[in-house]
Amino acid sequence: MAKKKAYVLGLDFGTNSARALIVDPANGREIATAVADYPSGQAGVILDKKDPNVARQDPHDWLTAMTRATRAALRAAKKTAGFAPEAIAGIGVDTTASTPMPVDAQGRALSANKRFRGNINALAWLWKDHTSFAEAGEITEAARKQHPEYLAKCGGTYSSEWFWAKALHCLRVAPAVIEAAATWVEQSDWIPAQLCGNTDPSTWKRNVCAAGHKGLYNEAWTWPEAAFLASLDPRLGDLRRRGHFNTTFTADQKFGDLSAEWAKTLGLPAGIPVAVGSVDAHLGAVGAGVKPGSLVKILGTSSCDMMVHPTSEPLADIPGLCGIVNGSIVPGYFGLEAGQAAVGDIFNWFVNHFDAGEKAHAKLSAEAAKLKPGESGLLALDWNNGNRTVLVDPRLTGTILGLTLHTTRAEVYRALIEGSAMGARVIMERFEEFGVKVGEVINCGGIAEKNPLVMQIYADVTGRPMRVSRSAQTCALGSAIFAAVVGGIYDSVEAAQKKMSGLKPKTYAPNPRHHAVYNELYRLYRQLHDAFGTREYSGSLFNVMKDLLAIRDRARGIETKKK
Amino acid sequence: MAKKKAYVLGLDFGTNSARALIVDPANGREIATAVADYPSGQAGVILDKKDPNVARQDPHDWLTAMTRATRAALRAAKKTAGFAPEAIAGIGVDTTASTPMPVDAQGRALSANKRFRGNINALAWLWKDHTSFAEAGEITEAARKQHPEYLAKCGGTYSSEWFWAKALHCLRVAPAVIEAAATWVEQSDWIPAQLCGNTDPSTWKRNVCAAGHKGLYNEAWTWPEAAFLASLDPRLGDLRRRGHFNTTFTADQKFGDLSAEWAKTLGLPAGIPVAVGSVDAHLGAVGAGVKPGSLVKILGTSSCDMMVHPTSEPLADIPGLCGIVNGSIVPGYFGLEAGQAAVGDIFNWFVNHFDAGEKAHAKLSAEAAKLKPGESGLLALDWNNGNRTVLVDPRLTGTILGLTLHTTRAEVYRALIEGSAMGARVIMERFEEFGVKVGEVINCGGIAEKNPLVMQIYADVTGRPMRVSRSAQTCALGSAIFAAVVGGIYDSVEAAQKKMSGLKPKTYAPNPRHHAVYNELYRLYRQLHDAFGTREYSGSLFNVMKDLLAIRDRARGIETKKK
Repeated sequence: MAKKKAYVLGLDFGTNSARALIVDPANGREIATAVADYPSGQAGVILDKKDPNVARQDPHDWLTAMTRATRAALRAAKKTAGFAPEAIAGIGVDTTASTPMPVDAQGRALSANKRFRGNINALAWLWKDHTSFAEAGEITEAARKQHPEYLAKCGGTYSSEWFWAKALHCLRVAPAVIEAAATWVEQSDWIPAQLCGNTDPSTWKRNVCAAGHKGLYNEAWTWPEAAFLASLDPRLGDLRRRGHFNTTFTADQKFGDLSAEWAKTLGLPAGIPVAVGSVDAHLGAVGAGVKPGSLVKILGTSSCDMMVHPTSEPLADIPGLCGIVNGSIVPGYFGLEAGQAAVGDIFNWFVNHFDAGEKAHAKLSAEAAKLKPGESGLLALDWNNGNRTVLVDPRLTGTILGLTLHTTRAEVYRALIEGSAMGARVIMERFEEFGVKVGEVINCGGIAEKNPLVMQIYADVTGRPMRVSRSAQTCALGSAIFAAVVGGIYDSVEAAQKKMSGLKPKTYAPNPRHHAVYNELYRLYRQLHDAFGTREYSGSLFNVMKDLLAIRDRARGIETKKK
Repeated sequence: MAKKKAYVLGLDFGTNSARALIVDPANGREIATAVADYPSGQAGVILDKKDPNVARQDPHDWLTAMTRATRAALRAAKKTAGFAPEAIAGIGVDTTASTPMPVDAQGRALSANKRFRGNINALAWLWKDHTSFAEAGEITEAARKQHPEYLAKCGGTYSSEWFWAKALHCLRVAPAVIEAAATWVEQSDWIPAQLCGNTDPSTWKRNVCAAGHKGLYNEAWTWPEAAFLASLDPRLGDLRRRGHFNTTFTADQKFGDLSAEWAKTLGLPAGIPVAVGSVDAHLGAVGAGVKPGSLVKILGTSSCDMMVHPTSEPLADIPGLCGIVNGSIVPGYFGLEAGQAAVGDIFNWFVNHFDAGEKAHAKLSAEAAKLKPGESGLLALDWNNGNRTVLVDPRLTGTILGLTLHTTRAEVYRALIEGSAMGARVIMERFEEFGVKVGEVINCGGIAEKNPLVMQIYADVTGRPMRVSRSAQTCALGSAIFAAVVGGIYDSVEAAQKKMSGLKPKTYAPNPRHHAVYNELYRLYRQLHDAFGTREYSGSLFNVMKDLLAIRDRARGIETKKK
């Protein structure tokens, strides 16, 4: 009997829903996909009316949504001739991060314990929960004094979105939760453990991706030392000591095998290899075909900008990056993460608050597309949600400069896109400044697929060709690629990527004339960027508005003629 | 027979229409008023599709509109018991400026000559015509070298809106017009000459207000010397030599008596004294009751900020002011003019481009009124039309800083009002810096009457009580005050003002708590003002966004608590 055709399953846990994607590993064809929303809270996020910083999640929701999505995907896949659940050779998992949670000695979510019913601190702390901003400041301050090397790998500042800041805040506002917790784990570790029916957290294979980018883990020192954490609060040191903070793994390693119980729930055979987890954006980069020289941008409400750099080649610490972690994206490579704190969020903010019309994005894009670079005289700083890379500063704000009495809505919309592209260019230049060459840029996400104007402006501003990932769900596809590796279909992630990932045919090539104008505007953007974003800037900004008007007048063909 | 009750007639020539106002000089009661639009062009302004800088006016329109408005006002006045046209004791005139025009040897508008039919350069050059911007630069440059004293009285920069720049541009683009012109006169001089039937321009009493603020006239040197103007172009020197540039007069002087012909046309008896003309905003200040220590703000699309200072007291040249002219507002006082290049224009721009709704101003004002000072985290530079005072720089642009993903339309609207108020405060501080104390502020115009939020924010930002002029047409009332002086009803403008001008009862008193917050925001506004507006600024702006967020968080009651 001939060997049966194999398929793989990628599971992708987003902020509001879980997705299951069934892929043919031979060619990356996505034969079936399904999405299921998290049932609790507001679109899956549990909020606190009194505190806008709170964003929690019920771990039970993840399991519910995963079950529904997987079963629906399997049903849909059955329309493909020859497909059967038994053909699934491996399962990969990615989740948001840092989304940590307290678990008991059996690895169960503490929120499931009736003692903590209704206590939002026993839930999972979603990546965008910002209640821990004071604790993040404390960690940064302490690390600066005691362990500057900890900060060097995460851009110089520890974030309120991250693992230890959340644990520290939790033990202060809900000490009973941390006392009752056997450990504190990332969602990306808890999900594979559940799938494998593993009830012993001391044996869990925590993933290097979340640990390295969010948990101060590094191969040079492993996890941050207990004495350091104890200096912030003795109870945090205790958590570190008792919590099984073992060595970490890359996602091409098997976490375990699908348990009989979960196999039954999902409608799959037991024993399928389940990969070590990973962070969604990082697997998105894999799904988009990341390789040395290709920058992958996951464009959504914010952006994640991912690159890889061979571990065999030297790499300096790059100031302002969110993290440099060996193996966090593709094993054998440093995974480099950067990003913009708001991209789609800015365009949506503008449309929601300043335009009540239908199809506003499409209409504004069509109008904005008629404008020439520089013609509006506007310049925008894309900091409406602070700056993630390279300034790593949440206390910065959006700015629009160059307004006249004739400035139109479409001009502002285009300026916001241009500002976003300039923010993207700052990141690219930072990579290159430290020896990581950025050639083509691969974009993923709804904006990349739906808005050619954004892609063209990104190309023209950065002077680099923009490509778009073939898959519309690169994160889930990345999971499926790791599933193919743990399922034994490929020997390496690169080999799997070659077959399974790809690009859409269209290339957005930079227009050299437009790029030349944008170089001038970018010089002004950098001037504002440094003036408002750094302590070191010194000088007048007297030239800025005048230069913008001169560029504008030139773009409009108005000569300021003097007799 | 008892002396008959007297009335006076104020004629006010605006940008789009002429107004006639009949006032009881005993108490300032406005017994009748009428407005008539200029029939030509677009709302009275003749434009050029190819050149947005062009804005001309047909002098014939002024006469047509004046006739209609006066006759309508007289008809309406007849409803007042005891009123008859014979009761009109004097006529005052104000017009826009600088609105100069070429006239022939009989003082006729050259545009009425069939030789120049269809030649827009033979029309009047409306104040907002900006075709002469290059010539304005030449005049500034030449004066800086040859006659710096000329510039010292008009803020250091000659404007493209002014008298000589327009003459110079006219003789270059239409030399035949200037060759055919006996002279070049302001509308504010031409109208009284017409009313008096005076056909000899050598005897016309040009007004010191337009001459001083727009024509480089000063008692120390009279008109700019012919050699200086000839250095720009010999033909401009010729115009200066032949054009009857005689001594000037204040508006409390009689220009002449109403001619029989015009008396018949208007429906008035001949021989009524007609005052020397003046500029609308300056007479608006008189109508609003300007006196030492009171700043009058004429709030419209832009603002004119007027003060008087006794000539008996020393007064330095104040850099950045539009002009310091002896007698230009009230005889016996220096008239000081400053202004903001856009006020209502900015609010209208925002509403027109970013809000399609009905009653947008009222709705946005109601929402904005609910916000606390500082709460939005926004700061706006009110430079959408450049900066008139104190930077005198048209090459500056509007800016909004502090945008987040939650910034609302009402927050931006309020920030625009606050930015405008901060621009107003800069002017007040400049006055005081040079020894001209600003106590109460008297506001005139539609915004002052209709938008209490604007008035309250102006009070809170500047820390000064805001009053509103009782009359809704202070310019025409100012004309009527001068009519009462030339009509012999009062000996002085001050005496007439005491009886005829007044304020609405409401005082917008500054709220001390709001003022304290605005002092903090104003410090940041000044920092941006100097950074973008001056060559001298040096330093980082690193604090700006952070300080705005700190002020915002405090206003919202969010403490950035650190354990």
